Amino acid sequence: MTSEASGGKFDLIAIGRACIDLNATEYNRPMEETMTFTKYVGGSPANIAIGSAKLGLRAGFVGKIADDQHGRFIRGYMERAGIDVSGLTVDTEGHKTGLAFTEIKSPDECSILMYRDDVADLYLRPDEVDEDYIRRAGMLVVSGTALAQSPSREAVLAAVQAAKKHGVKIVFELDYRPYTWKTPEETAVYYSLVAEQAHIVIGTRDEYDIMENAVGGANEVTTANLFKHAPEIVVIKHGVEGSYAYTREGGTFRAHAYRTQVLKTFGAGDSYASAFLYALIRGKDLETALRYGSASASIVVSRHSSSDAMPAVEEIEALIAGQPVPHA
Amino acid sequence: MTSEASGGKFDLIAIGRACIDLNATEYNRPMEETMTFTKYVGGSPANIAIGSAKLGLRAGFVGKIADDQHGRFIRGYMERAGIDVSGLTVDTEGHKTGLAFTEIKSPDECSILMYRDDVADLYLRPDEVDEDYIRRAGMLVVSGTALAQSPSREAVLAAVQAAKKHGVKIVFELDYRPYTWKTPEETAVYYSLVAEQAHIVIGTRDEYDIMENAVGGANEVTTANLFKHAPEIVVIKHGVEGSYAYTREGGTFRAHAYRTQVLKTFGAGDSYASAFLYALIRGKDLETALRYGSASASIVVSRHSSSDAMPAVEEIEALIAGQPVPHA
Amino acid sequence: MTSEASGGKFDLIAIGRACIDLNATEYNRPMEETMTFTKYVGGSPANIAIGSAKLGLRAGFVGKIADDQHGRFIRGYMERAGIDVSGLTVDTEGHKTGLAFTEIKSPDECSILMYRDDVADLYLRPDEVDEDYIRRAGMLVVSGTALAQSPSREAVLAAVQAAKKHGVKIVFELDYRPYTWKTPEETAVYYSLVAEQAHIVIGTRDEYDIMENAVGGANEVTTANLFKHAPEIVVIKHGVEGSYAYTREGGTFRAHAYRTQVLKTFGAGDSYASAFLYALIRGKDLETALRYGSASASIVVSRHSSSDAMPAVEEIEALIAGQPVPHA
Amino acid sequence: MTSEASGGKFDLIAIGRACIDLNATEYNRPMEETMTFTKYVGGSPANIAIGSAKLGLRAGFVGKIADDQHGRFIRGYMERAGIDVSGLTVDTEGHKTGLAFTEIKSPDECSILMYRDDVADLYLRPDEVDEDYIRRAGMLVVSGTALAQSPSREAVLAAVQAAKKHGVKIVFELDYRPYTWKTPEETAVYYSLVAEQAHIVIGTRDEYDIMENAVGGANEVTTANLFKHAPEIVVIKHGVEGSYAYTREGGTFRAHAYRTQVLKTFGAGDSYASAFLYALIRGKDLETALRYGSASASIVVSRHSSSDAMPAVEEIEALIAGQPVPHA
Repeated sequence: MTSEASGGKFDLIAIGRACIDLNATEYNRPMEETMTFTKYVGGSPANIAIGSAKLGLRAGFVGKIADDQHGRFIRGYMERAGIDVSGLTVDTEGHKTGLAFTEIKSPDECSILMYRDDVADLYLRPDEVDEDYIRRAGMLVVSGTALAQSPSREAVLAAVQAAKKHGVKIVFELDYRPYTWKTPEETAVYYSLVAEQAHIVIGTRDEYDIMENAVGGANEVTTANLFKHAPEIVVIKHGVEGSYAYTREGGTFRAHAYRTQVLKTFGAGDSYASAFLYALIRGKDLETALRYGSASASIVVSRHSSSDAMPAVEEIEALIAGQPVPHA
Repeated sequence: MTSEASGGKFDLIAIGRACIDLNATEYNRPMEETMTFTKYVGGSPANIAIGSAKLGLRAGFVGKIADDQHGRFIRGYMERAGIDVSGLTVDTEGHKTGLAFTEIKSPDECSILMYRDDVADLYLRPDEVDEDYIRRAGMLVVSGTALAQSPSREAVLAAVQAAKKHGVKIVFELDYRPYTWKTPEETAVYYSLVAEQAHIVIGTRDEYDIMENAVGGANEVTTANLFKHAPEIVVIKHGVEGSYAYTREGGTFRAHAYRTQVLKTFGAGDSYASAFLYALIRGKDLETALRYGSASASIVVSRHSSSDAMPAVEEIEALIAGQPVPHA
Repeated sequence: MTSEASGGKFDLIAIGRACIDLNATEYNRPMEETMTFTKYVGGSPANIAIGSAKLGLRAGFVGKIADDQHGRFIRGYMERAGIDVSGLTVDTEGHKTGLAFTEIKSPDECSILMYRDDVADLYLRPDEVDEDYIRRAGMLVVSGTALAQSPSREAVLAAVQAAKKHGVKIVFELDYRPYTWKTPEETAVYYSLVAEQAHIVIGTRDEYDIMENAVGGANEVTTANLFKHAPEIVVIKHGVEGSYAYTREGGTFRAHAYRTQVLKTFGAGDSYASAFLYALIRGKDLETALRYGSASASIVVSRHSSSDAMPAVEEIEALIAGQPVPHA
Repeated sequence: MTSEASGGKFDLIAIGRACIDLNATEYNRPMEETMTFTKYVGGSPANIAIGSAKLGLRAGFVGKIADDQHGRFIRGYMERAGIDVSGLTVDTEGHKTGLAFTEIKSPDECSILMYRDDVADLYLRPDEVDEDYIRRAGMLVVSGTALAQSPSREAVLAAVQAAKKHGVKIVFELDYRPYTWKTPEETAVYYSLVAEQAHIVIGTRDEYDIMENAVGGANEVTTANLFKHAPEIVVIKHGVEGSYAYTREGGTFRAHAYRTQVLKTFGAGDSYASAFLYALIRGKDLETALRYGSASASIVVSRHSSSDAMPAVEEIEALIAGQPVPHA
């Protein structure tokens, strides 16, 4: 029994979906013409947990998996990755594992065919979130997609209440996916509700616009609003232009993207988050943490999967060392 | 055009359901044996708005009514009661008005046969809540039942966010009704979420237990938790034993119930809330406000309806003056 | 124990809904202005069973009622009317009794405000239809509305299969109500399916158009199609113009409407059906049976309720005798 | 434009689901350990249409596909197989393609992980079934699974009504799959309803038990009941013991299974049906048709897919010729 399972501490616990990615084995063609698919674990919070574990963090996961071959594959893969899975519950009502068929027509044209209707992860219930488990974490990483539907929504809100009660830092990865959300207003209500209670908020500029139910929002306005509430660090990503980190104390930091041979665009955000959080947890300064995030993202977009491709610390640090002046 | 409709201020705006009560015309027998029913407006927030208007407050209402004869009756009744109904929207998807058939077997044995499935009030959407309307209120009165289901739930959360943004005091009437809520955990999550953001919380001891998903909770624990967050006044009602008001500063006040000839138990809480809030708004001290609440409740339980029976100020004050030492 | 309950024969068994009618006590005004409602049993097949029992037939009923005061009222009323209710099951899943609030603005302007969402009668299941009970009937009277939704739809189809297997005559009262049906095509599929298996089909011209998913259909075409299958008698009602009965052998009969002081239009069809079937069962010829139907309908439209107002044989026969030459 | 598309005749039109099979590329291990899947068209009626077209029949298909890469793959594959797809409609409400992940642990231990919730094929509506298209067929092949849910259920019932009206022979492939059916009684109601209207009924003994909502049914009873209605030929399959064909005139024929190297058990029924119907359409006698069915099934179970593996006529005839005395 690991120290985690027996009551030790976790660097972070991620909560939300763990799914199956089915990546077209043949690249650079429409999915109608691909005949084989390779299976990986997927889903933003699962990927962040896997990425963190691969970097050496003690990671836990809270979620719900289907009672079938795909669910068991997910559990087995996460265990082998070193994640504590004692917070995983198994669905007993016949819900299936979420699927993402990925299509890579070209490095710029990637799309995903999602199976998200009534999937097991959205059926995690608040009574299945153990307050004692959450309190053992340094950080609780919440994925926005888990807020899309009841009862997963209430499970996450209960986890957030537990984290606040026990002084666990809350990290909110906006991770917006249009599927399952019903209206922009509903989305904005829950994104605002959780962002205002989080300590670290991470997302793309587009995702913050979703949170604000607005178009073309400005980082200054977003951060001014969030810093009236709990947030201490707000990370806003602008794609190839790089990313910005803002602090409640008024600091602004920027990281550029690293050059790489892009195969596809999936998985960049999750690898970014895991390396960024890793660096913060290891005591790096914010600017360095941004660089870890960027470097990790660059590595994953050059590889076939999102989870299996998560880099080791050495790879990230080698890339940072090798590109001391990132391209503008 | 009233000053309210043209942009003036409201003492309070209530948000939530407005329904139809069908009260058995024949008393003291099971409903199987009653043959006629009298129609009234009902629903906790509607009753509070009606009670407040009858006491002379400038009241507004935000809700959704069915596009049928019952919906039009509700709108007409509220308008005639002096409530601003510009925040009422009409359902366009065929949802019906909620119904409550009341049965008065004896003063102690009252029951309600509820029609609450897919009723119009639960379909109020967040985009139908006007932030500019909410900001014109001194108080926003939120009813817990409106949190039971989407999209009404998100409409209320959006109203709470608007009220916080514009410095409008939030009053949370727990108003717990078992229908439509799915699980105790879900209920507790949303009750806690809104109670922690409210300035005044009002409910029975049983309702606070629902909020805490616990049994036999203690007022001291409840208030200690709530005073860590936004609440300034917490009112906890203990039925015939009377009610308590607690303040963030540490004050505790108690009001006794007034003697009356009880006909039925319906409507006591709503008349309590409207008179209590009326007194606070008029600048009475907390102890006096509790007395107004108790007196108003005593009057309503002696009458046939909940809304139509709401007392005038003179009646409340006469009862208080006539029973200077309330029975213990 | 009655002979019916102990295994005797029934003249007819009706299957489908038994609901509550709430008739505005005040006439000739919009419902917004009516304040009291009188409660009656309602629903086409319940009314037909009540009408039949009042005429002296041995009637049974198969349906599902809510586990509440309204459900118990229905059961009690039907029992007192002399109907065998051993085929009634009680809903255990919290479904409510269907309601119909009636509005009588004028004899020509009547409307109904229906509560039909998720009502108990639509939850009758096929395993709750007892084949041995059905086989004891001379006729099975099926109401089209019971086909609107699963599992009531399958319960009726199972009852029809049982009736066919045991040589029980099937009477199909089209009884079309727009609520709960989803599309015209779906409606047409099930109406055709049952009509083709029935021996007697009764409906208005408009209802046959619904069955054919067509507009302005001709009686000749309708009957030509139906007589290719099981039907032996087809009754098509044309409102004030009277009604027609067609036989498989080629006969055509017409009945005129009887003069009366019309109070409202509700309930005419059900009283027509019960008197028409009564006459057939008592061995009257088809032309006489049509007259019984018309006379019974005329009596009910002059009275306040649909069920309670069902006439006795003497009343019907007195009206027929008193108006030997019906108005054209 | 083919003669079919321009109004010619079809040997058969199949109606129902067309899905995606994802067959584990690695055999003889649990799916948790398989990493790649190969994509095929699947679904009983699609397979029968593909099998028939491969045998040289003029085949059409009526169904609904998702508006995505999987849907377009299905359409393209069927077109290339020579099937007329003008009866295919594209879902516009975001429903997904049904999926079947197959697991081949050993030739005897095969299982399927199904994604059937809210899939596009179950949303075929009755107004999307063209009566003029159906009338052009010699046979309409109905799959029982399409009856599992509305509106696909009503679409099939409408197709059956159209076929009856225009003298098109109805073939009912019971094709029972437990997913999506709610209760045994509901299943039995619709299976009986369609079987009684079909001319040829094909299924396993277990499937006939489902139709009768009974256990351990006898072929004699099943056929006695069905021959009271429309059926002329009833085929009942008993797995390795072979299959029986019964005729309304009293004939009984038996076919034995052909020896083969079994890889998996999927797809046997569909290949059986297509070859059996092919033989009947080509004028073979019933005993020969049974042999064609058995031989075709034997070929498919030795191959990796269900659709792609459908044999040509020469293969079937070679197998029959090569095993003149099938094993008992």
